Amino acid sequence: MDTADLAPRIASGDRRALARAITLVESQRADHRAQALALLGQLAGTGREALRIGLSGTPGVGKSTFIESFGLMLTGQGLRVAVLAVDPSSSRSGGSILGDKTRMERLSRDPMAFIRPSPSQSHLGGVARRTREAVALCEAAGFDVILIETVGVGQSETVVAQLCDLFLLLLAPAGGDELQGVKRGIMEMADIILVNKADGDLRPAAMRTVADYAGALRLLRRRPQDPEGFPKAMPVSAIEEQGLTHAWAEMQALVGWRRETGHFARRRSEQSRHWFEEEVRQGLLSVLSRPGPARETMSRLGEAVTRGDLTPEAAAARMLASL
Amino acid sequence: MDTADLAPRIASGDRRALARAITLVESQRADHRAQALALLGQLAGTGREALRIGLSGTPGVGKSTFIESFGLMLTGQGLRVAVLAVDPSSSRSGGSILGDKTRMERLSRDPMAFIRPSPSQSHLGGVARRTREAVALCEAAGFDVILIETVGVGQSETVVAQLCDLFLLLLAPAGGDELQGVKRGIMEMADIILVNKADGDLRPAAMRTVADYAGALRLLRRRPQDPEGFPKAMPVSAIEEQGLTHAWAEMQALVGWRRETGHFARRRSEQSRHWFEEEVRQGLLSVLSRPGPARETMSRLGEAVTRGDLTPEAAAARMLASL
Repeated sequence: MDTADLAPRIASGDRRALARAITLVESQRADHRAQALALLGQLAGTGREALRIGLSGTPGVGKSTFIESFGLMLTGQGLRVAVLAVDPSSSRSGGSILGDKTRMERLSRDPMAFIRPSPSQSHLGGVARRTREAVALCEAAGFDVILIETVGVGQSETVVAQLCDLFLLLLAPAGGDELQGVKRGIMEMADIILVNKADGDLRPAAMRTVADYAGALRLLRRRPQDPEGFPKAMPVSAIEEQGLTHAWAEMQALVGWRRETGHFARRRSEQSRHWFEEEVRQGLLSVLSRPGPARETMSRLGEAVTRGDLTPEAAAARMLASL
Repeated sequence: MDTADLAPRIASGDRRALARAITLVESQRADHRAQALALLGQLAGTGREALRIGLSGTPGVGKSTFIESFGLMLTGQGLRVAVLAVDPSSSRSGGSILGDKTRMERLSRDPMAFIRPSPSQSHLGGVARRTREAVALCEAAGFDVILIETVGVGQSETVVAQLCDLFLLLLAPAGGDELQGVKRGIMEMADIILVNKADGDLRPAAMRTVADYAGALRLLRRRPQDPEGFPKAMPVSAIEEQGLTHAWAEMQALVGWRRETGHFARRRSEQSRHWFEEEVRQGLLSVLSRPGPARETMSRLGEAVTRGDLTPEAAAARMLASL
C-alpha cells in the first residue's frame, strides 16, 4: 500500500484515504504497523479535536436505528459524524450492529458521515488498539463527532470508556423488576442513559423505565466531574426522531461543564497514559506469542507442566530466567 | 524465618508449620519468595491429593454457617478439612467471611480442620498465587478436602474455578424474578447450586428457587465432563444441618465420574498450565512495577504522554525498545 501521501489526504478530508488508513492500522503485518505508526505521528499535530461519544446497548434496544437518527440529526446541523465499533465478538457471532451498513442506509449515504464496521479479526486488545487509532485518524480528518458503539457485554464497555469523552447507555423500555439486568459497573460508566422506543404503545413503559433509572442513578455517588443533575436518564424515540435534539443539548451541556472545569482535558491525558501503559504491557507479553525461541521454550515448559514433570512455579522461574 | 525443616513438618501434619509456610508464600520479600519456591519444590513429590472444592456466594447467603456445618459434617466422617479464602476486596471492606474465625467457632476449634483467612494485602493476581500455593501446601499436609471460598463478585470466581476440582454456588431463597441476579458466567461455572436456608418459613421459597435454577441449568449446554443430571440445584439448610450429606454424596458422584473419564486429571493439568502461563505473564510485567531503571523510564515516558508531548504509540515503542 502506498502510504506516503495519506497524511495530507486524510487531513484534507479525503474519505478513501481515511478508509485506507484504518485498514492500515487494522493490519497485523509488521511493515504495515511501522507505516501506521509513522502516519499517526504525522497526523498527531493537527490540533483537531472531535467529541468522542461512547454508546453501549444490548442487541434489541434499537442501537442502529438510534445511531442513524442521531447521526442524521447531527449532520443536519452541519456536523461531520464518524461511527466506529468495538465488538470483539463480531468475528464469532457475525452480530455486529455495524457489520451491515445497510442497517444504517440513510446515514451511510450521507456525505457528512463516515461509518466503519468492526474488523472481523479480534481479541479485545487488538480491537482496542485499532479503535483508538481509528479515532485518532477520524479526528485528524476533521470529524466533529465520533460515535464509538459497543454491545453491552462488559469488558468492551471498559475499553470504550477509556476511548470516549462521554458515555451513553441505550436501553429499551423494561418491566419494573428488570433494573438489575444492567450491570452496576456499566451503569456507573454512563453519563446519560437513553431509554429508546418512547413511542406508541411502549411510551408509558419507557417513561416508567426512565423514572426507575433516574432513581437508581440518584443512588450512585455524585461524581466530582459532573454538574448538578448528571448522570441522568432521558426518553428518546429513534424511530420517530423524538428527544434527540434534547439529548444532544444535554450532552453539550455536560461536555461544556467538563471543559470549563478542566476535567475534559484531564480525562484525555489519563486515557492517553492508560493506553501507553497498556501498549507497553501488550508489547512485553507479545514476546511469548510471537514465533521465536521464547514461544518455543514457553511451549516446551508448558508441556512439562501439563505432564506433571515441573510445578507451575518452577517452570515459570525457568522461563523468566531464559528471557 | 527458619524454613529448613518446614517440609517434613508440614508433611507430618504439623499445623503450626503449615501456618508458617502459608505466611511465607504470602510474603512479598524476595528472600521469602526464594524459600517459598524451594519449599513448594520439596513438597511437590508427596503424591497426596485433596479434593479441591470452590465455593462462591454473595454476602448474606449464609456462607460461613454453611462452611461450618459442611466442614463439621466432613470432619465427623474422619476427613481433614482446610478452608482458604480468595477475597481481593478484604483489605478494603474488611468484609471477608474468613476475616473473623469466630464466625466459624466450632470448626476453627476442630483439630481435623484448618482455617486460614484471606491475607490483608492483595490485588487479585497476588491473591491467586498465594491461594494456589496455599492449596499445594494444604495438600502436602494431608488434608482430604480443601474448601476455597470467595465472594460472588465475578473475577475472583474465575480465579477459584482455575484452582478447584468442583465448583459450588451457594444461594439464598429468592423471589421468582431474581434469577438474573446471578451472572450467567458464574452460573456456567457451577457444578452444583446449593440453595441455603431451606428451613422454617423460607423452605417453600427455597424449594421454588431450587426449581427455578434447575430449570435455568437445563437451558445451559450439557458439558461433556458431566454425567446425566449435572450441573444440578439442591436445597440445604446450613443452620439445621439438613441436606449436607446428600450434597456431599452428589459431589462424590460427580468427582467419581470425572476421575473415571479422565476429566479430573485433565482439568488439573490444564490448570497447572494456566498458572504457569499466568505466572510468566506476571513475572514479565513485574519489570515495569519493580523499582529500577525500567520503572523510571516508564514513569518519565508516561508523563510525556500525559503532557501531550508524545503519542501513546510512540512512547510505547520507545519503552519497548529500551527493554
